[in-house]
Amino acid sequence: MDKILRIDMGADGGPQFKTEPMGDYAGFGGRGLTSSIIAKEVPPSCHPLGKDNKLVIAPGLLSGSVAAMSGRISVGCKSPLTGGIKESNSGGQASQMLGRLGYAAIVLEGKPKEKTLYKVFINKDGVEVKEDNSLCMLGNYDTADKMKAEYGDKVHCISIGPAGEMKMSAASVAFTDMEQRPTRHAGRGGVGAVMGAKGVKVIVIDDTGCAARTPADPEKFKAANKEFVAGLRKHAVTGEGLPAYGTNVLTNVINEAGAYPTNNFATGQFETAGKISGETQAELENARGGEGSATHGCHRGCVIRCSGTFYDKNGNFLSKQPEYETVWAHGGNCGIDDLDKIAQIDRLDDDFGLDTIEMGATIAVAMEAGVAEFGDADAAIKLVKEVGQGTPLGRILGNGAAVTGKVYGIERVPVVKGQAMPAYDPRAVQGQGVTYATSTMGADHTAGYAVATNILGIGGSVDPLKPEGQVDLSRNLQLATAAIDSTGMCVFIAFAILDQPETFQALLDLIGSFSGSPMTADDVTAFGQTIMKLEREFNAKAGFTNEADRLPDYFQSEPLAPHNVTFAVTAEELDQVHNY
Amino acid sequence: MDKILRIDMGADGGPQFKTEPMGDYAGFGGRGLTSSIIAKEVPPSCHPLGKDNKLVIAPGLLSGSVAAMSGRISVGCKSPLTGGIKESNSGGQASQMLGRLGYAAIVLEGKPKEKTLYKVFINKDGVEVKEDNSLCMLGNYDTADKMKAEYGDKVHCISIGPAGEMKMSAASVAFTDMEQRPTRHAGRGGVGAVMGAKGVKVIVIDDTGCAARTPADPEKFKAANKEFVAGLRKHAVTGEGLPAYGTNVLTNVINEAGAYPTNNFATGQFETAGKISGETQAELENARGGEGSATHGCHRGCVIRCSGTFYDKNGNFLSKQPEYETVWAHGGNCGIDDLDKIAQIDRLDDDFGLDTIEMGATIAVAMEAGVAEFGDADAAIKLVKEVGQGTPLGRILGNGAAVTGKVYGIERVPVVKGQAMPAYDPRAVQGQGVTYATSTMGADHTAGYAVATNILGIGGSVDPLKPEGQVDLSRNLQLATAAIDSTGMCVFIAFAILDQPETFQALLDLIGSFSGSPMTADDVTAFGQTIMKLEREFNAKAGFTNEADRLPDYFQSEPLAPHNVTFAVTAEELDQVHNY
Repeated sequence: MDKILRIDMGADGGPQFKTEPMGDYAGFGGRGLTSSIIAKEVPPSCHPLGKDNKLVIAPGLLSGSVAAMSGRISVGCKSPLTGGIKESNSGGQASQMLGRLGYAAIVLEGKPKEKTLYKVFINKDGVEVKEDNSLCMLGNYDTADKMKAEYGDKVHCISIGPAGEMKMSAASVAFTDMEQRPTRHAGRGGVGAVMGAKGVKVIVIDDTGCAARTPADPEKFKAANKEFVAGLRKHAVTGEGLPAYGTNVLTNVINEAGAYPTNNFATGQFETAGKISGETQAELENARGGEGSATHGCHRGCVIRCSGTFYDKNGNFLSKQPEYETVWAHGGNCGIDDLDKIAQIDRLDDDFGLDTIEMGATIAVAMEAGVAEFGDADAAIKLVKEVGQGTPLGRILGNGAAVTGKVYGIERVPVVKGQAMPAYDPRAVQGQGVTYATSTMGADHTAGYAVATNILGIGGSVDPLKPEGQVDLSRNLQLATAAIDSTGMCVFIAFAILDQPETFQALLDLIGSFSGSPMTADDVTAFGQTIMKLEREFNAKAGFTNEADRLPDYFQSEPLAPHNVTFAVTAEELDQVHNY
Repeated sequence: MDKILRIDMGADGGPQFKTEPMGDYAGFGGRGLTSSIIAKEVPPSCHPLGKDNKLVIAPGLLSGSVAAMSGRISVGCKSPLTGGIKESNSGGQASQMLGRLGYAAIVLEGKPKEKTLYKVFINKDGVEVKEDNSLCMLGNYDTADKMKAEYGDKVHCISIGPAGEMKMSAASVAFTDMEQRPTRHAGRGGVGAVMGAKGVKVIVIDDTGCAARTPADPEKFKAANKEFVAGLRKHAVTGEGLPAYGTNVLTNVINEAGAYPTNNFATGQFETAGKISGETQAELENARGGEGSATHGCHRGCVIRCSGTFYDKNGNFLSKQPEYETVWAHGGNCGIDDLDKIAQIDRLDDDFGLDTIEMGATIAVAMEAGVAEFGDADAAIKLVKEVGQGTPLGRILGNGAAVTGKVYGIERVPVVKGQAMPAYDPRAVQGQGVTYATSTMGADHTAGYAVATNILGIGGSVDPLKPEGQVDLSRNLQLATAAIDSTGMCVFIAFAILDQPETFQALLDLIGSFSGSPMTADDVTAFGQTIMKLEREFNAKAGFTNEADRLPDYFQSEPLAPHNVTFAVTAEELDQVHNY
């Protein structure tokens, strides 16, 4: 994994590619690498859909090795949604495969001169870039099927759906999962629109003939990996909750905490949340007799296995098991409590190539505007279909909650830096509110998952309803996450490493024994600081000030039931998050 | 003119109003007053459509007097279009009438608790605020007619159309002209959306029984006014060009200069510009036998009289004589060269309550996106009608060029701070580009009309195609304009006062003799600085940095025909504009 593939889509006479050594980027992977390349090479004031923006797809430092959990991938660019730097993270198979093929990053550059769609094929023999307008406006599912038919059964895809082709700010980049279905997405920030602007429909990968990457110290690495896996298996969240119920195990937990944003963040509890909880979902899936929810990883090497499969009433595959954020976004946040309908929307989002969080938040804003009624699942399905069709209404919605709120003159729009908030009301999980406000990414839950400590009591205890301690909590989590997102590791390992020092040590040993340079906890923090400073600098040059590190007004003035609490972390306190 | 009327639309039990003395605001009028109130009373980070924003309507310092040209009015708020401070300026009768009634400003505050529309009636006896949901979604023309029927033939209106009620960012506030038609608009920045958010449909004014305001030194005032009027009459632009052909006299001039933005700023000349020039327009209007274009002021006291009336082919009133910016926006910028169609759109814009500049720029962006063909006037009319109807497509367009560009994934969107550029390509009138980039208002031509010097040779000579001298030119014009916009004077007086020292002196004497405190040229500059500093400070607190003072990338990289010139004023130079 010592080379960067650059494809100049704007070259005279059609796309040109070259591979380069890592150069100054040596030692960086995942988010660290995407953010380094964007910060160094993309003018912060450029148009996100223009020739000067770049789309960087980077496996993590450990991707392609046999380290457990190391198959996450980062997609970076200047975001069309936020106008700032973006790293969006996904599972799927591409990360391990690109790692094995030796690519630390794929960089899509320039702007095609013609309205032509391209496909890229990468295997051990090299790279091909070919025109293929037959892919135009295909869904991600059809695209993946077509590529399998063309390139064989072993391939995996990185693709965009119609939303990316239409350059919508809610467009995702899809990654096929272990079953070659396009169910894993770098969803946030409109990265799919940037891929669309580059004219690339799909990147097809075949790692046949490539072996796993070998560690510098194989014995130490093997031992560390064993300890690391054992740690993940013994922790209640990574060893029990997530595998049993998937991420949707959170519905009941967050709802009981009064932090479950309902009907466009109007209240903190959804009366019929139980109907869409992870427990209900698992029961339903088991009753339908398909593969259970506890049996899937989203990528090769996963041992938490929180993914699953959702079959419809007739036992036919409908979608992956919808994640907690999706069930919330299209469920409780829209007043919808029908798992089958939610799974249908999940499938549509995946097929059109849309971020489920942004789309659910957007439909709730549209509901507040009177475009549909809260609770009307069929109307929500119809709205998502309009997005896929690119009708005017679909264009509005496909550009996210902020645009939809502006177009309909709605004040209650739960966004930061133009990006919709995920499934935790910042008034009832104030640490999460600090992350939403101050993350370089816009409102993002994974950027510093304070829910862990605020609600789940992992890594300490900080009262979720009070401002005290939230700034330090969020800062530490944001720094650690920036580092973890650079390794290819799934962020869910945080539950175990925050609680179990020996599991954290195993992770450090895993990284150190792989690279050959020992790693300490301080190195992790320092690495996180390096990345976030690069990101903050880019955002500042793009025109962001501290004023962008704020929640919308109404979170400070509208109390949230049932705790009747407002967001109480002050602007001055928020401005302390990035003091490091 | 010593009192401020405040109407709290969000008071418990319905709107409450009170009048207050000027207090700290004494000595301010027009833009100086709107910007002072906004800067002092509105939290810069508030939502523009929320309870904390205010809409301030303020006649100028001389409005209500018999000073020539003193009937312009300022509308201020935090702009839903730019997110920054906004002053939008209009003609019409309201300014002189409010001046005579003694109101320095009307301030609409708070947010109505119910979805109810209100009308406000103001006469010498006081103020009434009444519910009137029968006005819901009426056009400005019907609204004005209804108010005349209800309040009598002498009244004038300040109103919003459906666009304002729908809180669109291109929504204007309409002011009835001398014929009681709603043809004069505070168009820019979405001020109509803020009036809509306050739930006020119309403010009806009757100044029966009120006399003109008396100057401190009547003799000196009279003499100064005489000299001032003589100066305006003898200058070629204010005495001949504007009265003969209206503002549209500029079409041929700007087109010949290669600075006429054509087909969404693709080139600087429009082949059939002659078909929509002021000369053609005057000929057409004269041939149709209606009132000529040379006979109208837009407000009582105007001596330039650049307004007119446009009759259709059958001799029926269609609209006011469309202004240059309107003819350009809906004409050349969309590849349309049919004056009748342009006048139809002008009428629709006025009736729906839309900024013609923003709408024309928006339709051109939509044309670039393929929503319609350049040159298709019927399609353009249909699009504007969709805005009035509030269809999803209409909602997109009604929110302006920036939103439309984002929704359709278009890169070539000619906006600064989210506001569309007017009828001068900044590459071929680089001084105007400096104003677009650095004005506190977003891209605004009147904020510092460098066209005067760059193209018309007024007030000196600065090569329009070169960066040299543009920063100083724009700075001086911006400062002077901020001061002029505070007096109630029409900005067109600038042509005469820039060229004729005695006319400038007459203006100073007019202001000084009215207030009783002599005024010098330095005072004007100092006053301009005070206002712009307030505005810049507000914008900084709202999150604007120097990065917001830039033109979109492509003006620096795409050369404009026929001069094949790019915008060459550097970022460093732009940052010198506000060094004062």
